[in-house]
Amino acid sequence: MTDAVDALVIFTPSGKRGRFALGTPVLTAARQLGVDLDSVCGGRGICSKCQITPGYGEFSKHGVTVEADALSEWNAVEDRYKRIRGLIDGRRLGCQAKVMGDIVIDVPPESQVHKQVIRKSATDRHIEMDPATRSYYVEVDEPDMHEPTGDFERLLRALKAQWNIEGVETDLSVLRRLQPVLRKGEWKATVVLNKGNHDAQHRLLDIHPGYHEAPLYGLAVDLGSTTIAGHLCDLADGKVLASSGLMNPQIRFGEDLMSRVSYAMMNPGGDIEMTKAVREALNALALSIAQEAGVEPGAIYEMVIVCNPVMHHLLMGIDPVELGQAPFALATSGALSMDAQELDLGNLNRKARVYVLPCIAGHVGADAAAVALSEEPQKSDDMVLIVDVGTNAEILLGNTTRVLACSSPTGPAFEGAQISSGQRAAPGAIERIEIDPVTKEPRFRVIGSDLWSDDAGFEAATSGTGITGICGSGIIEAVAEMRMAGLIDQSGLIGSPDQTGTPRSEPFGRTFSYVLHDATATGGPKISVTQGDIRAIQLAKAALYAGSKLLMDTMGVEKVDRVTLAGAFGAHISPKHAMVLGMIPDVPLDHVRSAGNAAGTGARIALLNRAARDQIEGLVHNIHKVETAIEPKFQEHFVNASAIPNAVEPFPELGQVVTLPDVSFNTGGSGEGEGGGRRRRRG
Amino acid sequence: MTDAVDALVIFTPSGKRGRFALGTPVLTAARQLGVDLDSVCGGRGICSKCQITPGYGEFSKHGVTVEADALSEWNAVEDRYKRIRGLIDGRRLGCQAKVMGDIVIDVPPESQVHKQVIRKSATDRHIEMDPATRSYYVEVDEPDMHEPTGDFERLLRALKAQWNIEGVETDLSVLRRLQPVLRKGEWKATVVLNKGNHDAQHRLLDIHPGYHEAPLYGLAVDLGSTTIAGHLCDLADGKVLASSGLMNPQIRFGEDLMSRVSYAMMNPGGDIEMTKAVREALNALALSIAQEAGVEPGAIYEMVIVCNPVMHHLLMGIDPVELGQAPFALATSGALSMDAQELDLGNLNRKARVYVLPCIAGHVGADAAAVALSEEPQKSDDMVLIVDVGTNAEILLGNTTRVLACSSPTGPAFEGAQISSGQRAAPGAIERIEIDPVTKEPRFRVIGSDLWSDDAGFEAATSGTGITGICGSGIIEAVAEMRMAGLIDQSGLIGSPDQTGTPRSEPFGRTFSYVLHDATATGGPKISVTQGDIRAIQLAKAALYAGSKLLMDTMGVEKVDRVTLAGAFGAHISPKHAMVLGMIPDVPLDHVRSAGNAAGTGARIALLNRAARDQIEGLVHNIHKVETAIEPKFQEHFVNASAIPNAVEPFPELGQVVTLPDVSFNTGGSGEGEGGGRRRRRG
Repeated sequence: MTDAVDALVIFTPSGKRGRFALGTPVLTAARQLGVDLDSVCGGRGICSKCQITPGYGEFSKHGVTVEADALSEWNAVEDRYKRIRGLIDGRRLGCQAKVMGDIVIDVPPESQVHKQVIRKSATDRHIEMDPATRSYYVEVDEPDMHEPTGDFERLLRALKAQWNIEGVETDLSVLRRLQPVLRKGEWKATVVLNKGNHDAQHRLLDIHPGYHEAPLYGLAVDLGSTTIAGHLCDLADGKVLASSGLMNPQIRFGEDLMSRVSYAMMNPGGDIEMTKAVREALNALALSIAQEAGVEPGAIYEMVIVCNPVMHHLLMGIDPVELGQAPFALATSGALSMDAQELDLGNLNRKARVYVLPCIAGHVGADAAAVALSEEPQKSDDMVLIVDVGTNAEILLGNTTRVLACSSPTGPAFEGAQISSGQRAAPGAIERIEIDPVTKEPRFRVIGSDLWSDDAGFEAATSGTGITGICGSGIIEAVAEMRMAGLIDQSGLIGSPDQTGTPRSEPFGRTFSYVLHDATATGGPKISVTQGDIRAIQLAKAALYAGSKLLMDTMGVEKVDRVTLAGAFGAHISPKHAMVLGMIPDVPLDHVRSAGNAAGTGARIALLNRAARDQIEGLVHNIHKVETAIEPKFQEHFVNASAIPNAVEPFPELGQVVTLPDVSFNTGGSGEGEGGGRRRRRG
Repeated sequence: MTDAVDALVIFTPSGKRGRFALGTPVLTAARQLGVDLDSVCGGRGICSKCQITPGYGEFSKHGVTVEADALSEWNAVEDRYKRIRGLIDGRRLGCQAKVMGDIVIDVPPESQVHKQVIRKSATDRHIEMDPATRSYYVEVDEPDMHEPTGDFERLLRALKAQWNIEGVETDLSVLRRLQPVLRKGEWKATVVLNKGNHDAQHRLLDIHPGYHEAPLYGLAVDLGSTTIAGHLCDLADGKVLASSGLMNPQIRFGEDLMSRVSYAMMNPGGDIEMTKAVREALNALALSIAQEAGVEPGAIYEMVIVCNPVMHHLLMGIDPVELGQAPFALATSGALSMDAQELDLGNLNRKARVYVLPCIAGHVGADAAAVALSEEPQKSDDMVLIVDVGTNAEILLGNTTRVLACSSPTGPAFEGAQISSGQRAAPGAIERIEIDPVTKEPRFRVIGSDLWSDDAGFEAATSGTGITGICGSGIIEAVAEMRMAGLIDQSGLIGSPDQTGTPRSEPFGRTFSYVLHDATATGGPKISVTQGDIRAIQLAKAALYAGSKLLMDTMGVEKVDRVTLAGAFGAHISPKHAMVLGMIPDVPLDHVRSAGNAAGTGARIALLNRAARDQIEGLVHNIHKVETAIEPKFQEHFVNASAIPNAVEPFPELGQVVTLPDVSFNTGGSGEGEGGGRRRRRG
């Protein structure tokens, strides 16, 4: 200790520094320097969010030596806190410890508001926490008969004085509970405020007596045509507590989007039925995911939803009829913020807010916007193609100069629907397949076991689940492997037993099918790939490729630098097999990566970071939309892409790693070999 | 016509003038000069709101001579409009007529947006129209597949381009109807926007295809403890189309406010029952008043409500328990804006908005604020006392220097409740009474006839209604006349037949009553004023006077300059009789005026003029609240004021016009003559 009246305070990791009068609490110093140090209780030693780690000794990097008495002594508040709640050794409470000499103070990640959420894949960008919903502890003046003001007005005054928060609005449901809560908490309360990016105003969502530590949760939802996937996140640290999915119950009204639009057009009130079904599903998802995580669904204060335009309108209760015909006008394209009650989501907190990302165009929805938010093509120096595989595929192409987008009606084949042995990705489903090009014998793996079907112990390992069908990534591998093994030709035709030399090629009506697994002898299923399955995959992958190609045409490029495969099962698609199929344009195999459920990730980013909402709301205006439905070239690309991999494109990069047998099983006459003249409806 | 390129345009009555290029439409010139000339269609010749009257000839006052060709010729649009819809001779459409020479143009009142609404009483201030809810006609761009935006976003763009309106928000119920409406109107629409004073944002309340002329209505409501009064207004011109009232159904839970607070405290869920009852009543009022006016209730887009704090909380669904005990804390004191749906007001337009004036304090509510808005004590040079008579009286005292306010629990006696022959003001009720001081014989008038009971033809004139009871103003006159006629003494005791010399003084239990009208011989009622009635009026008027006196004490004045009597039946109270009773302080009789239902008028002002909302929200902070419930002096004033007119105050001004008989009927023993030691509960 010197006779100095102030001292140097250096915060790490920010490096921010300043001189402060001796006796200044560390939290105060941090706030004055703009150091990101959390506090819910406003420095009252209650919440412990402001924990810091003082460093002692010599810090040559900072040119400072920290004495043992550089902070005030451990005080009663810290003592009590440590005794009751526990405190990691070496930690202090920033609101209690006072600066008494030059000091270096580390702010651990969990004490930062704007902490980084580490995403699972190391190549992905981090999410900075800046949630729209936060808790604040306040101490409210008691009422004074001689200075009459309402309890709510005194709460507002406290928020202004203690948190510098102004412009808070609420509704009757919260006002109704205000008086008993303030009295129960003896004029101390914890309020939950939401400030979406749009609103100038904070919204008061909830109020608890005294200091209330219960966490706040948010639900990020990717609402697809076929599946609905949700991630339950802790709004304080961004952790995903549970991820869960369920089938979109609208499937019973039509497998693809255009069937649902037709249903609404043909059946008066049909849109209302579908709206009700999807809202009920979202509400059920909220409940089940909360139960899975072991939290109260009422603690879910926010939901962020991404979806395609038809799902968007059906969710909002807007008749999607205009989306079924040119010019495919959206009722609204902007981001939407609303009360969860407006969507009948009663399982969430009664005041929960919903944010829906903006749509890009009539066929390119909030899900595409979410993919853009997650994958950031506008920040890529390379020309990157992002393909979000689903019943309706979202495709983005671009770099720092320009970003294009379209959607393509692939149909539900990639999700295992319309496939004879198709099923959703669940234990027992075949997900990986290899076919020996000489013997034409397959081996495979099923979800739930790491063993291949020709490994010892496979039978025992899969006895619990059985072998029940083929999932989306499995069918892609199956068709690609059949092509590599010479079981189908470029046109997609399955060869006869004679042509292929294997009895696994079986007659199936006027065509042939390839038997992957036959358990009929023991009462089990026979799992085959039929000619119909091949056709369904051809249609789907041709739509996907044609969309990509159309964007490349519009961009004026012959090839792309990188391909990102996204989608609920995007992470599971083998790049090599996707390229053998001709799903994606020809690039070096190591330039293809999987981004997992990028739309869901985009939803999660928007949930955890308000600024990301501003970012995507601005970005969608700069994404140029290409309408596949009216481009004559799309049809041409589609027909060419029906061949495997393609009737006209050379695929030289693919040729470097795979040589495809030059076989043709078309014996003329049946016309089956022409492949894919049919155009799928948008799905 | 000269060779000039521009011309002088002078608008009356504003006197605004400017030079404009020849060919400029009059509407354009008006807008550039800031002349108040209405237009809903934005100058497209559809709405005819911009009608003007050009003046021709010499205008020496303006130093201009207007030639016959100073405006462009009558055009096809005007022609068609006049043929189909009619146009007053000499009128032109401001958007069609173009300036071709110097011209003087009069804007008739009905073409002004900010027109003045003439209130019935000539002494009252005018209301300038500036409603929060208005219609706008817009032409929306059609969707373009190549520049994809939502229909809503294109509507916003049109509002910005055509009306310079930004920041419009809406909800799903309107978005849901947007697409069919725009297509039905061929991309032309009339939108109803609301911009309350609080909101930075406009709210889109409704949308109609094409140009839609249907008027917009608003409902101003004075929600009292005993009666609910509503005024249905046209939001374009402020006209009152219908006024209607109904009993507050909460009366069944307690006649005065404190009984209702007690009911809520003693009966779990009691507050919810009362909330439901009052909301249902408001909803029913909206329907009945719309039916009375012959308009669609769905065209009511706004409701402004004024009420006392207990009614305020019960309406909002907030348990009023805190208002029943010191420090009488309001849950919220600020003005409230909300959707009518939040209050279950389903009969209004589905998107209707509700504005509730701010409260001044726990016992001085939005009704007192409304009285201040209507009567403007803060603008008075004189010291004015404003007494709003009701079950709970609101009292304001002040001038340009300072304004004080209190409430006083008068109880429902003035509204005819707790009076043996009391009834609401309806045909058949006695409203005026005179008693001959010599013969002690009464004569009276009943509502529905202008004849006195001793006039020829009275019986025939009242045969339809009968003579059914005494209304609020009638009981005040009856008691005052009894005092003037020497039928009751200063303490309020009714004299015996012997003491008064009239057989109309009849024994009634241990006391006496005075028979006003006896129709028992023909099977009709006997209408008397009982000792209990006198006591009820004494309690009520003593509370009123004590409140006024307490404000005078706090203000430090011995007398006031003026008294304004307000309240639902304030207009009907005879100032002389009120002063004989000692309801109000002693002032020259011609300094007492009636303001009618000032609270209702304040509600109407806030409904028709947005700026008035800002004004009252600011003013309430400058009104100093005096809490009668805890002031020991109140009790003292109350006891003194139980006497008629007062036990200690001299009332010299009253003495100039009335000499009260110096009688005393107290024979000792019964103690009935002591008068008013009981304190009424707040009501």
